[in-house]
Amino acid sequence: MAQDTKGITVKKFDDMPQWYDQVCKKAGLAENSPIKGCMIIKPNGYSIWEGIQKQFNNYLDEDKVPNAYFPLFIPESFFKKEAEHAEGFAPEVAWIEQKEDDQKERLAIRPTSETIINDSFANWIRSWRDLPFKMNQWANIVRWEVQDCKVFLRTREFLWQEGHCVYETQEECHKDTLHFLERYRQIGEDLLAVPLLVGRKTARERFAGANETYGIESIMPDSKALQMGTSHDLGQSFAKAFGIEFQGRDEKKQSPFTNSWGISTRMVGAVVMTHGDDKGLVMPPRVAKHKVAIVPIIFKDDQEPIKAVEELGAELKEFNPIVDTSDAYSAGFKFGKYELEGVPLRIEIGPRDLKNDEVVIARRDTSEKRTVKRSEVKKVVADLLEDMHKTMFEKAKKTMHELIVEPKDYKEFQKNINDRKVNLCGHCGDEDCEAKIKEETAATTRVIQDENYKGPCIKCGKDAAYKAYFARAY
Amino acid sequence: MAQDTKGITVKKFDDMPQWYDQVCKKAGLAENSPIKGCMIIKPNGYSIWEGIQKQFNNYLDEDKVPNAYFPLFIPESFFKKEAEHAEGFAPEVAWIEQKEDDQKERLAIRPTSETIINDSFANWIRSWRDLPFKMNQWANIVRWEVQDCKVFLRTREFLWQEGHCVYETQEECHKDTLHFLERYRQIGEDLLAVPLLVGRKTARERFAGANETYGIESIMPDSKALQMGTSHDLGQSFAKAFGIEFQGRDEKKQSPFTNSWGISTRMVGAVVMTHGDDKGLVMPPRVAKHKVAIVPIIFKDDQEPIKAVEELGAELKEFNPIVDTSDAYSAGFKFGKYELEGVPLRIEIGPRDLKNDEVVIARRDTSEKRTVKRSEVKKVVADLLEDMHKTMFEKAKKTMHELIVEPKDYKEFQKNINDRKVNLCGHCGDEDCEAKIKEETAATTRVIQDENYKGPCIKCGKDAAYKAYFARAY
Repeated sequence: MAQDTKGITVKKFDDMPQWYDQVCKKAGLAENSPIKGCMIIKPNGYSIWEGIQKQFNNYLDEDKVPNAYFPLFIPESFFKKEAEHAEGFAPEVAWIEQKEDDQKERLAIRPTSETIINDSFANWIRSWRDLPFKMNQWANIVRWEVQDCKVFLRTREFLWQEGHCVYETQEECHKDTLHFLERYRQIGEDLLAVPLLVGRKTARERFAGANETYGIESIMPDSKALQMGTSHDLGQSFAKAFGIEFQGRDEKKQSPFTNSWGISTRMVGAVVMTHGDDKGLVMPPRVAKHKVAIVPIIFKDDQEPIKAVEELGAELKEFNPIVDTSDAYSAGFKFGKYELEGVPLRIEIGPRDLKNDEVVIARRDTSEKRTVKRSEVKKVVADLLEDMHKTMFEKAKKTMHELIVEPKDYKEFQKNINDRKVNLCGHCGDEDCEAKIKEETAATTRVIQDENYKGPCIKCGKDAAYKAYFARAY
Repeated sequence: MAQDTKGITVKKFDDMPQWYDQVCKKAGLAENSPIKGCMIIKPNGYSIWEGIQKQFNNYLDEDKVPNAYFPLFIPESFFKKEAEHAEGFAPEVAWIEQKEDDQKERLAIRPTSETIINDSFANWIRSWRDLPFKMNQWANIVRWEVQDCKVFLRTREFLWQEGHCVYETQEECHKDTLHFLERYRQIGEDLLAVPLLVGRKTARERFAGANETYGIESIMPDSKALQMGTSHDLGQSFAKAFGIEFQGRDEKKQSPFTNSWGISTRMVGAVVMTHGDDKGLVMPPRVAKHKVAIVPIIFKDDQEPIKAVEELGAELKEFNPIVDTSDAYSAGFKFGKYELEGVPLRIEIGPRDLKNDEVVIARRDTSEKRTVKRSEVKKVVADLLEDMHKTMFEKAKKTMHELIVEPKDYKEFQKNINDRKVNLCGHCGDEDCEAKIKEETAATTRVIQDENYKGPCIKCGKDAAYKAYFARAY
């Protein structure tokens, strides 16, 4: 309702930024707010985030990670405790105006919560019996660096979850850092049908203060990489900076090992960019709140189709169908609306269908329409939704891999970037060499694809440390 | 884990503020943060909030109110659009330091979101076909007025939901304002077993900018009232201030009617205060994440009880039991821990129980222990949980109503307040008269109990406008 349902007026591959804005706004996902750099997440967009939350909370339950909530504000002194972290976040922190009261210190709005959470951990953790100690929070985050706002993809405020864990040993810590990375892969690929590149980030792209950062990224159809989640092995740096100590099995005081990991509302942007088409959003069926929209086709005063869609709606309850019997809009208008919003399946019932004891099912991703016997609808719906997930994932995977090329030299590397391709090539691992590539091409390393690669660095010719993806990024 | 499980060292009715702090901290519910006035919500406290969210989201689904998310920041000019609102919130708003960029206006951190949400509604709503238009958001809120922080009850940052709806007619608007008030009653009484006083607030206690405010409150065992939720009929004031207009059925432009309504993490504080006892928290069973804790009693190397509790845990899966087989702590320690945390039922299985094919079930609210045949455990657990909700609610209701008295004159009114009682009496409705009572007794009107009361005002003797509850409040 209250949406501009005139449809998308720009083709996806003609002008992707324009197309993206239109889909987000017209499909009721999100729009820019009067506050520069901040978005309004509208119900259809928020419902995707709720779907991600629900599935991730299931994983957290399985992994015995409880949810908690820490303050929005972080004292300035906390940032300063971990030097690299402070330096990394300094430019993008928003501060609140100091009040004339007893709060003597300058307060930041959280750009991430390692500092305040580790400060509490230092109070709570005493013994090896308390470890591993795991906690997650769902929260809003503010990072003021963004100039050019793009809903979901780049905003000054966004929503995320951040997990923070403490371990007795580096080995456990590292193992779990990778475990949560795999959880993110499950969210991206198995829930959202978004194909991913998963791997370690280079030193230059690491989280401020981390030993190692791992990421899940996807290549959007415009060839730009989108980082969607990161999992950081923080070693002992935060534990030492915040004085977390525990009495070990040997009765001696020790510093534990910590990790942190997060995914954000960026994932919703990935869904739009990856799956959307010239008609609007295509919702991956597993995360779709309403998997089916049922629309009666009514002629004159024949109310039979209304009764029929209501009955079918009740039968398909597990798919949380929209049963749209409103008479304020025509059937054609409704078809357009649910296509724009990306509802996976549309079921139409008209007088002729009724007479034949059939319905028409239209599939959003392929636009394929089929006539189905009334008695078989439930089974066909379940099968189509399952098939739709697979088809969407495979199609997106193919599109992504077609954008990835292996250059034979740096000249070709540069040409590829200009041709809107992603490079997969060897690199020496030197941060300055990586910085030069960014300067010359605006491309950065995304994740390392092969840790054991033997060959030359694409830029300087020295021995490569690994093979990595290079792309321009959101 | 990592909790101080030494138990509560203060009796509830000896020193309730101390007792409350201890229960919140030791039962892992919440504690003060290093940022004055802000709390850290720990996992056991957050799980109660998650239980409230889950149930309320079910209601929102039934009521067709989708969730959305609006920015944390509110431009100063937005506040100024609704004069009363601006005045009401001015003293407690936190502002962010202005950045040297293109954001020209001072930005507040939201103390509530009527302004920014109604600004969007003005863009989105066009026709009577768009109405009613309903939206909810779950968000963090900052109000800087609080000096004396009390976790959950009074904090500078808290979590809440805020619903905002737009209607064609005043009648619909008013009807729904009361409908959402009833939803809050359901959350308070039917989910949390917290007895409520439900009714209209007096003009003096109204939300800044509202026509009418309705509230749910409870009387805590220390006789102080706790406002837990409010539902505001905003009439046309916000719609007019923000330029929301729609084309009516008569094709003419009209101003719609709006309401807003919210409940917050205060509700978690009400659960602690209402139900807790000298041993710690008592969790209302319907909101308890883990409804049962199963503990084996192990002698020497007899591993049989461990196997038995694991089997029982699987059988009781629907109650999400804690199955505590850890050997780091004794059975006695575990009993203490789950009592402190308020897990509704504890099941013990020792070698003798195994031999008799029995288990022992201990009920947290009454401390009653009973021996139950193994084959009957599941049914007994379900029955006990149901009974526990009823018992807890009735007990709390009795306690609350024992605190409410009807004074015959103002002298008795004053004495009652000093004796830690709540007054129920007639009042003229004059704001100055109400202010005088507050000045002299620190008591304020909570909600109106009888709109048709005939009799004198307890303070000035004029004809009463209604009969209302007067109490000191959190």
